[in-house]
Amino acid sequence: MPENQQTVATVGEAGLLARIFPLLPQGPATLLGPGDDAAVVAAPGGSVVVSIDTQTQDQDFRLLWNNGYASTGYDVGWKSAAQNLSDINAMGAEPHSLLISLTLPPETPVSWVEGFARGVHDAVRSLGADVAVVGGDLGRGREISVTATAMGRVVGTGVGLRSGAGAGDVVAVAGRLGRAAAGWSLLESTVPVQKLTPAQRELLDAQCRPCPPLGSGAEALAAGATAMMDVSDGLLKDSARLARASGISIELDLGRLAVFASELRPAAELLAASGTSGESPDQLVQGWILGGGEDFCLLSTFPGNAPVPDSFTVVGSVVPTAPGQEPGSQVRTGEGDSARHLTRGWDHFGAA
Amino acid sequence: MPENQQTVATVGEAGLLARIFPLLPQGPATLLGPGDDAAVVAAPGGSVVVSIDTQTQDQDFRLLWNNGYASTGYDVGWKSAAQNLSDINAMGAEPHSLLISLTLPPETPVSWVEGFARGVHDAVRSLGADVAVVGGDLGRGREISVTATAMGRVVGTGVGLRSGAGAGDVVAVAGRLGRAAAGWSLLESTVPVQKLTPAQRELLDAQCRPCPPLGSGAEALAAGATAMMDVSDGLLKDSARLARASGISIELDLGRLAVFASELRPAAELLAASGTSGESPDQLVQGWILGGGEDFCLLSTFPGNAPVPDSFTVVGSVVPTAPGQEPGSQVRTGEGDSARHLTRGWDHFGAA
Repeated sequence: MPENQQTVATVGEAGLLARIFPLLPQGPATLLGPGDDAAVVAAPGGSVVVSIDTQTQDQDFRLLWNNGYASTGYDVGWKSAAQNLSDINAMGAEPHSLLISLTLPPETPVSWVEGFARGVHDAVRSLGADVAVVGGDLGRGREISVTATAMGRVVGTGVGLRSGAGAGDVVAVAGRLGRAAAGWSLLESTVPVQKLTPAQRELLDAQCRPCPPLGSGAEALAAGATAMMDVSDGLLKDSARLARASGISIELDLGRLAVFASELRPAAELLAASGTSGESPDQLVQGWILGGGEDFCLLSTFPGNAPVPDSFTVVGSVVPTAPGQEPGSQVRTGEGDSARHLTRGWDHFGAA
Repeated sequence: MPENQQTVATVGEAGLLARIFPLLPQGPATLLGPGDDAAVVAAPGGSVVVSIDTQTQDQDFRLLWNNGYASTGYDVGWKSAAQNLSDINAMGAEPHSLLISLTLPPETPVSWVEGFARGVHDAVRSLGADVAVVGGDLGRGREISVTATAMGRVVGTGVGLRSGAGAGDVVAVAGRLGRAAAGWSLLESTVPVQKLTPAQRELLDAQCRPCPPLGSGAEALAAGATAMMDVSDGLLKDSARLARASGISIELDLGRLAVFASELRPAAELLAASGTSGESPDQLVQGWILGGGEDFCLLSTFPGNAPVPDSFTVVGSVVPTAPGQEPGSQVRTGEGDSARHLTRGWDHFGAA
């Protein structure tokens, strides 16, 4: 069979493993890598920070988008690695290992899976992480599904939780909000991918191959951060989670968030002009910044009297929860809190 | 909405988490449990043994089987925990933590997911493991898919690999071979589940809620085991993997394997009589013992001059690979090696 027509069914499990093992990243924490029933990983300091996350075809990515773009295995591998490493960053820890379980329809081309492995490799290296893929699993299903477990080590004296924010803290973000959401809107639009400008194409790439600010978690902890989490379901929704975990409320400042708007505007203008959306460019941009996840920015709170690291943008403040209210997050616009209804963030089962 | 009609879509992600968190097992290795971006787990000795495995609907289990049996969430949760803990056992290590990612269609009943959590809990406790669920993920998909990561600690001075077997070793198994495969055949037969005798029903249960011999890995290591792995794809196929990893060959002794046959025979006679299978009871039993996985027995090799622990059954021997042959595994029947073609084990993509 010609190599470019090979599928996972024609090469089988062992054949597929032999093709992708050499493409995966290796790293110094691996004591025993893939090939046995389990891996063995060094856990310096006697603890390990660990998370698990799944991406499923047509939920978290599409193989073929509305605008004609076809997600490559490279994209899916990159994103899987990036979003899982982000969870370790969001604890202020340093990732060292990944395990990846791939569920694939039998007709999946081997080249797609090789691309996946290269995407994992390049994400790890591009994000500056010294991370190895130490193990995995291959199985069959009707849709492509990728589950990764990320492991890391505590860097300083502990980890950063969602629950430590206090009134008077400032709220800050590392990374650039709204890019991945703008990319999603472009991918789901009727504007052909070939018609995008380089600046618009960059936003599409931010959705398919996000670049979480690894290292920012440890940096925040060192600077005295009181709470942290990554923004995967949108700033408004995730900041409300942090607020509830901390028992405080968060006011987001729309004026300060405007710093993220300029690079999103060319996409918003294109989509508003194309008639894809009934919203104005301003509304689109605001929705992406407040409601868009998947940039895997780091949301963190810092004591009000401490300097915020340069890589963070201050976007709001922590306030006491008003009497009779629940802890939560709202947007301060200078014109009331009318922005609040614009976006609700992402619930995986569609509940409000 | 009446409680028994609630689905994961109606309660949403946060609602579902609130329902299942209290049902999951807890354990002493957990430094930070579910609820933040990642968990923190103690890693005594400065290392962690870790594996990942996925079960997908209609591949690894059916919601509704041919014989009318409906897999419960409890079954799927139990099996997911059991098979992942088996991978840690297969290294001679002791499991302490699980992370579980659940992908669910939105119409999945909440009660199914609660059953899943109870199944995980009861498997862990029934198997004698002091294991906590420290983290997880919930997502949406067209089919139910469960990925679990199991973590454990090295018990003695190291871990057991597939690669240490040497000529002259004996080959032994902990656990009871063929039960889960017999259960699979019953589930896929036309004999209604209601017609099964208690002995036949036990085999069905062995497929749905397997009981790997946790602790046998550490026991084998302490007894000087030279190589080990768990039997998940069938004795013939998995012993060939161990043989290749060790660069030796394995001869399985059909006479010694007959000890597993008696409890399988009632199912084989039923299926042969029902006309479901074209094979004789003897052929069915032999196929289950040699080709059936999912009992998660422990396959281990021991030096020929050392005592084999009582919980193991000797089933063969390690021999040098004959000149001109590849390392592998074959069955010694006393009447030639004609049994070899009877079964091939399980490849996830259907390759030979």
